Amino acid sequence: MVNKFVKYFSKFEALTKEEENAIAESMQLKSFKKGDYLLKEGQISIDTYFILEGAVREFINVDGEEKTTNFFLEEQWVISLNNFNPQTPASTNLICLEPTTVSVGNEIQAKKMFQSFPRFETISRAIVEADFAEHKKQLNSYLTDSPEQRYLKLLASRPDIFQRVPQYQIASYIGVKPESLSRIRRRIHQESTKGA
Amino acid sequence: MVNKFVKYFSKFEALTKEEENAIAESMQLKSFKKGDYLLKEGQISIDTYFILEGAVREFINVDGEEKTTNFFLEEQWVISLNNFNPQTPASTNLICLEPTTVSVGNEIQAKKMFQSFPRFETISRAIVEADFAEHKKQLNSYLTDSPEQRYLKLLASRPDIFQRVPQYQIASYIGVKPESLSRIRRRIHQESTKGA
Repeated sequence: MVNKFVKYFSKFEALTKEEENAIAESMQLKSFKKGDYLLKEGQISIDTYFILEGAVREFINVDGEEKTTNFFLEEQWVISLNNFNPQTPASTNLICLEPTTVSVGNEIQAKKMFQSFPRFETISRAIVEADFAEHKKQLNSYLTDSPEQRYLKLLASRPDIFQRVPQYQIASYIGVKPESLSRIRRRIHQESTKGA
Repeated sequence: MVNKFVKYFSKFEALTKEEENAIAESMQLKSFKKGDYLLKEGQISIDTYFILEGAVREFINVDGEEKTTNFFLEEQWVISLNNFNPQTPASTNLICLEPTTVSVGNEIQAKKMFQSFPRFETISRAIVEADFAEHKKQLNSYLTDSPEQRYLKLLASRPDIFQRVPQYQIASYIGVKPESLSRIRRRIHQESTKGA
């Protein structure tokens, strides 16, 4: 797990031995069972999570219905709105879809690291920007794509989600009812068989 | 304009005189007419813009129809996907809704600034995070809110947009046809008169 964590950061910038050690020492492992919550609506939390193993779903309760807003898998940061407004109670929930092991961090700890190793702030900025870009893509997709296009994009960009997440949660994430997702899948299947 | 620019940065961290001067010197003013493009689909550009005066609309062409994905007004960074993948041709357009004056910057220039003034990287990270938070809110709103709720949230959070942007562009941004927006507005107006 330590290697995995250090290796992740070294993708952004080549690290010195000292920097690698600092990252390894900063790692705070925490394990969760399937169904455990990392965060519940209304809670106040400053923690961020880096997934080493497992899967986490983000959802919002809307009139008793769970609307899925994101999935996080290995090597992803579970960044929720909460992290940017740590004084405000969370508006989203984070639940483990599988047994999940994360490294826990927070802004206070990060700032200490940046003081000793200023390059970590550059890496941190790159991580936030990459994540931001993903969100912009997702938002633009909601604004411009049909549900079918969103489904195809998700299938192309994150095929692993389809192996690990129940269909009805994927439907919610794409913004359609489970029946509509089944219809979309059938149509795409028929068209691909027609083309063959 | 210089004062406005420096003042904006000093909101994040109290600045020394030297830091203020560096920001003032880094400012690169550029003025555009209404209807001018800051960026066109397919262009490759590394520039980011900070709006000192004016308004910019971001849109994507979908089968000949312009889908509005964002509005940027004074004291906002025009951050588009392009900025995170500068080698890739832009998938969005940026057009001035009014005569607009911006300060132009880019990552190369920013990196030089960070070397001389490491605190600027902290500020830059804070700016990206705040913008990220706004996008997350908008994305969550698309995933969970009705068009009417999105309209009400936009009205509450960015009332100035309604004074400066044509209705049909707001409709596109909310994700409804202009007729639907008129209906939503009528319904809300009726309900508010009923309550009075």
